[in-house]
Amino acid sequence: MIIVIKKDSDEKQLKRLIDWVKGLGLEVNLSHGDNSTLLGLVGDTSLVDTDLVRSVEIVEKVQRIQEPYKAANRKFHPQDTVIDVGGHLIGGNNFQLIAGPCSVESEEQIIGVAKAVKAAGATILRGGAFKPRTSPYAFQGLKGEGISLLLEAKRETGMPIITEIMSVRHLDMFEDVDIIQVGARNMQNFELLRELGRLRKPVFLKRGLANTVEEWLMSAEYIMSEGNTEVILCERGIRTFEPYTRNTLDLSAVPLVKEKTHLPVFVDPSHASGLSRLVSPLSLAAVGAGADGLIIEVHNDPEHALCDGAQSLRPEQFAELVKKIEVMLPLVGKKGEKQ
Amino acid sequence: MIIVIKKDSDEKQLKRLIDWVKGLGLEVNLSHGDNSTLLGLVGDTSLVDTDLVRSVEIVEKVQRIQEPYKAANRKFHPQDTVIDVGGHLIGGNNFQLIAGPCSVESEEQIIGVAKAVKAAGATILRGGAFKPRTSPYAFQGLKGEGISLLLEAKRETGMPIITEIMSVRHLDMFEDVDIIQVGARNMQNFELLRELGRLRKPVFLKRGLANTVEEWLMSAEYIMSEGNTEVILCERGIRTFEPYTRNTLDLSAVPLVKEKTHLPVFVDPSHASGLSRLVSPLSLAAVGAGADGLIIEVHNDPEHALCDGAQSLRPEQFAELVKKIEVMLPLVGKKGEKQ
Amino acid sequence: MIIVIKKDSDEKQLKRLIDWVKGLGLEVNLSHGDNSTLLGLVGDTSLVDTDLVRSVEIVEKVQRIQEPYKAANRKFHPQDTVIDVGGHLIGGNNFQLIAGPCSVESEEQIIGVAKAVKAAGATILRGGAFKPRTSPYAFQGLKGEGISLLLEAKRETGMPIITEIMSVRHLDMFEDVDIIQVGARNMQNFELLRELGRLRKPVFLKRGLANTVEEWLMSAEYIMSEGNTEVILCERGIRTFEPYTRNTLDLSAVPLVKEKTHLPVFVDPSHASGLSRLVSPLSLAAVGAGADGLIIEVHNDPEHALCDGAQSLRPEQFAELVKKIEVMLPLVGKKGEKQ
Amino acid sequence: MIIVIKKDSDEKQLKRLIDWVKGLGLEVNLSHGDNSTLLGLVGDTSLVDTDLVRSVEIVEKVQRIQEPYKAANRKFHPQDTVIDVGGHLIGGNNFQLIAGPCSVESEEQIIGVAKAVKAAGATILRGGAFKPRTSPYAFQGLKGEGISLLLEAKRETGMPIITEIMSVRHLDMFEDVDIIQVGARNMQNFELLRELGRLRKPVFLKRGLANTVEEWLMSAEYIMSEGNTEVILCERGIRTFEPYTRNTLDLSAVPLVKEKTHLPVFVDPSHASGLSRLVSPLSLAAVGAGADGLIIEVHNDPEHALCDGAQSLRPEQFAELVKKIEVMLPLVGKKGEKQ
Repeated sequence: MIIVIKKDSDEKQLKRLIDWVKGLGLEVNLSHGDNSTLLGLVGDTSLVDTDLVRSVEIVEKVQRIQEPYKAANRKFHPQDTVIDVGGHLIGGNNFQLIAGPCSVESEEQIIGVAKAVKAAGATILRGGAFKPRTSPYAFQGLKGEGISLLLEAKRETGMPIITEIMSVRHLDMFEDVDIIQVGARNMQNFELLRELGRLRKPVFLKRGLANTVEEWLMSAEYIMSEGNTEVILCERGIRTFEPYTRNTLDLSAVPLVKEKTHLPVFVDPSHASGLSRLVSPLSLAAVGAGADGLIIEVHNDPEHALCDGAQSLRPEQFAELVKKIEVMLPLVGKKGEKQ
Repeated sequence: MIIVIKKDSDEKQLKRLIDWVKGLGLEVNLSHGDNSTLLGLVGDTSLVDTDLVRSVEIVEKVQRIQEPYKAANRKFHPQDTVIDVGGHLIGGNNFQLIAGPCSVESEEQIIGVAKAVKAAGATILRGGAFKPRTSPYAFQGLKGEGISLLLEAKRETGMPIITEIMSVRHLDMFEDVDIIQVGARNMQNFELLRELGRLRKPVFLKRGLANTVEEWLMSAEYIMSEGNTEVILCERGIRTFEPYTRNTLDLSAVPLVKEKTHLPVFVDPSHASGLSRLVSPLSLAAVGAGADGLIIEVHNDPEHALCDGAQSLRPEQFAELVKKIEVMLPLVGKKGEKQ
Repeated sequence: MIIVIKKDSDEKQLKRLIDWVKGLGLEVNLSHGDNSTLLGLVGDTSLVDTDLVRSVEIVEKVQRIQEPYKAANRKFHPQDTVIDVGGHLIGGNNFQLIAGPCSVESEEQIIGVAKAVKAAGATILRGGAFKPRTSPYAFQGLKGEGISLLLEAKRETGMPIITEIMSVRHLDMFEDVDIIQVGARNMQNFELLRELGRLRKPVFLKRGLANTVEEWLMSAEYIMSEGNTEVILCERGIRTFEPYTRNTLDLSAVPLVKEKTHLPVFVDPSHASGLSRLVSPLSLAAVGAGADGLIIEVHNDPEHALCDGAQSLRPEQFAELVKKIEVMLPLVGKKGEKQ
Repeated sequence: MIIVIKKDSDEKQLKRLIDWVKGLGLEVNLSHGDNSTLLGLVGDTSLVDTDLVRSVEIVEKVQRIQEPYKAANRKFHPQDTVIDVGGHLIGGNNFQLIAGPCSVESEEQIIGVAKAVKAAGATILRGGAFKPRTSPYAFQGLKGEGISLLLEAKRETGMPIITEIMSVRHLDMFEDVDIIQVGARNMQNFELLRELGRLRKPVFLKRGLANTVEEWLMSAEYIMSEGNTEVILCERGIRTFEPYTRNTLDLSAVPLVKEKTHLPVFVDPSHASGLSRLVSPLSLAAVGAGADGLIIEVHNDPEHALCDGAQSLRPEQFAELVKKIEVMLPLVGKKGEKQ
């Protein structure tokens, strides 16, 4: 870490800062230039609170050389983390497909979709029970009943299930859920992250709509710092000025994040664009970018539903996509379960 | 609301959509053009779930004409909301200054700052007890003890207090807090908003780092839809590509939001820029833009603290700023408590 | 186009607006609601100046239903545009690889790279002669001499060449250049676009760093409105808050833009990230997303150059990438020249 | 400047880099840590091409300590630049008001508005002759004829004039224009900047829609590096995700830029929001933030124009605003011409 000290700063304040840094167990190299003084900090700087340092009056700027995350950092854990979810491996050279409806609506629906996506090659079932909605007047999901229906579909098909949590108050209901999803809006709900860190169950952490890669990894670090090392990251689109798509899927983040961390990285092509006809090209793009898996919305029974899901694929579209993905996997050094 | 239907769409699907809309108690005007069919929805469209409509396969786009918020909407409540906090009025032509330290650190510190800011003209005391931090390794605040110290300062000075909540689990500790603050990262923590909506206590709702004005007002609507109408909005900077300031203070949002809603709008110039020397110009700018008040970080005792707060003003700087603000207030049709 | 009129607007102003719209040859449907009056415009609304309409005092908002671009619009030209560049076809089900160094440096360098990329499968040679640089003190390219060296490489290898123009003053030098590139910073240099529109030569139009898809297509429209229909679009990354990559490659734009327009869409994975190790995964991602081609930086002779190009691939890395791309092309319905 | 070298980098490449840096006349301090090697560059680093350095294979990152602009840098020119435009002083503790219509439309219009804004307190006349428009089908301004009408208004009222240039090809027409404006879309039209740098005439440089403060100052540096030191900066809103306003006026940029540079900084509240009812509050906000002047759109004769300018003030609204501004100026240490 480099701390740039303002020109003509008070010597007493400088000494106080240096003493404080040394008190953290770090070494300090001091170098004087014409226009500024630099402090170079050597040691484990992940423990340094840069906001605090930046707020010191004599400090011009603070620049990290080392990343502030440790448990999530590939430098300290070069091997890929591989997570076993009901016998399905996530991470490393494995590729997994999570699929299912946007919202759980009924037993018939969730079991129907589960069977269809399993037949097409999906290995894990998704379905929304608690739905974060911008408007208090919009449908908020079946909640606890939705989780019961997912568990029913799990019994019926043998697929592990993943569903989103929205409050620490609901933790009890997630006891038999295989993977707990943290949505984009809760990526920095630090109290929730801490409580999930005390579980021994995989957490699927979506990137916030306007969060940097570093903040995302720091949120993973929150979970890991409490002892839960099974974190799966998921890129789902960031907010930009472009109005044609709901969000802008940041696929450069995939190879970049995999370089920075050993954790698995998934992509959600359904939510990013909000348009079903973009799901297939963006899925192939995500595989090309090196994703460890995809989470895709698939619906069925479009004839009787109002919401037949502009962002959802029909089961036969999903099956066709899976075939193309399987051709691509060897190009990126991955293998699906069929291979 | 206008729903644009894709060219050559299936008639049965169109009929199903129209029936569904009518079922919500709305009228539908159908008009056919060369390239598209338009549905014009007439009635209370705030109850329409646009995401659901957008997801219907035959829909090209959905455009709201009316805003989706009702309780927060000035169209339906033209009078400014005025909130009484311990005898201090917030909103309307009143102007209030909230001031205090970033974090509560000790009894001596919080009481010292409280007396200093009160003497300078502040009417409400701020101080962080629960601190949302990007890093799990950074100082997270004194928590419950911090709230006790704030209450001590309240007894000592008579100033009402405001402090931030981070989890529904901590609600009990906030019983004697006068205003509960919801931070930017929790602006869309919908479960928290709902629970605060069941209280009868003012909520100070900061805008999220990447949230639109409409989403911000929808979060106010979450609180109000549960019965708590005392919501104060606070602009605190949004995330852009500019690295020199921590965030970009969006002052155009102030007159714009005051046009859209009857709720009071505050500005936080300290957190937006993260630089104390920008606090005074941005405070005057916020007054010029029409803010109903400011929340400003003030520290004391810079000689003995490491963190003497690059984003905090010293009490004498704050006092000087207050004098300038008082000259400006009549220009914008406002009055402070001294006037 | 829908024009929303403010409540209680002046009838005379409304009549004046309606007359003006009719004067453009459009029909107007008027509908009155409780809170607003709507004007629906029917006809060729691409000629309507929405900024002008929005600036009328009685107008609340203006929403286009039809896109404002005509010549570039797939609705009016459903067939893909296919452009012949020296016998190489761009667009349709063809896939082309443009490759070459960031800057032209010497005859030896450009001819060396040209031969290497041709051997690996590239069909068009790129190389910067005029370099847009943020700093006036940075190297600005070999300019006219750089173009001469590119022409030399063209004679030597038979490859058509593409290079960037920065000013209308330099047009004469581009007479023998096969494709003229307009860089991101000049995407809305409207005078330059108009002059290029008067040529009969393909224009390679990069998306601006903060431009929407619609603005990008409107810039294509500027060129096409002067008669030059050979426009190739190129996504090269947009500006977001993420600091780890130079820009955020917006791959969702590829399938989206191909839906909106019949023009070919390329991707530049080298400039977007600024990191050579991200070029291969982002290239495969771009192919998956449906791009009509790639433009990739390849350097040689890393032993003797200072700038051995962190964003450039070495020829052997490029050759390896080309092989993977060739496996992928059939999955996305494309074919390269070897196939 | 700090260059961070990757772990286990090739020693020969490191030596080549160090030699190259020394060849630029800079000193290099080398320090080795556990995870990386740092090079500290001492001397005039504004001449170092950071893109070039970043592209060297062994470099992990490059961080400037010193700003890359020199002529525009307040560190090297602590005194405010004051520019004399026809006897009106711009910069320092002076405050100037530029006002006039969006577009020049007729002799009657421009002279009418000029007289009205002069009477209200404006000192410089604005008016668009060349209009940058997103659509090739929109009105592009009266061009040369517009400039003639502005010159007519100048003769009539004695006010200096400012108008926008869009192409180097039009330079001849600007001979009698007092201040040449460079619009946001041309902020990085480097060839245009260079040619304006060869004039001896003030240049009014608007910030690009998605440009950082540093890039903006580098564009000023382009002009200044050719010898023209009379550059006036103008903040006019940046592009964010917020759709309610056309752009987000970045008022934190005003005190920040004034800290970084000695050049005058203006604000354009009319274009930023695109809404006339926001112009007055944002003008007062800009004065509070410390702007050296404002450029405001004022129209007249709303009865007979279609475009009576939702973003333009009427002359009487402008006059009322000027009175408020005059009350505020002493608070920010400024004086208008009347004072």
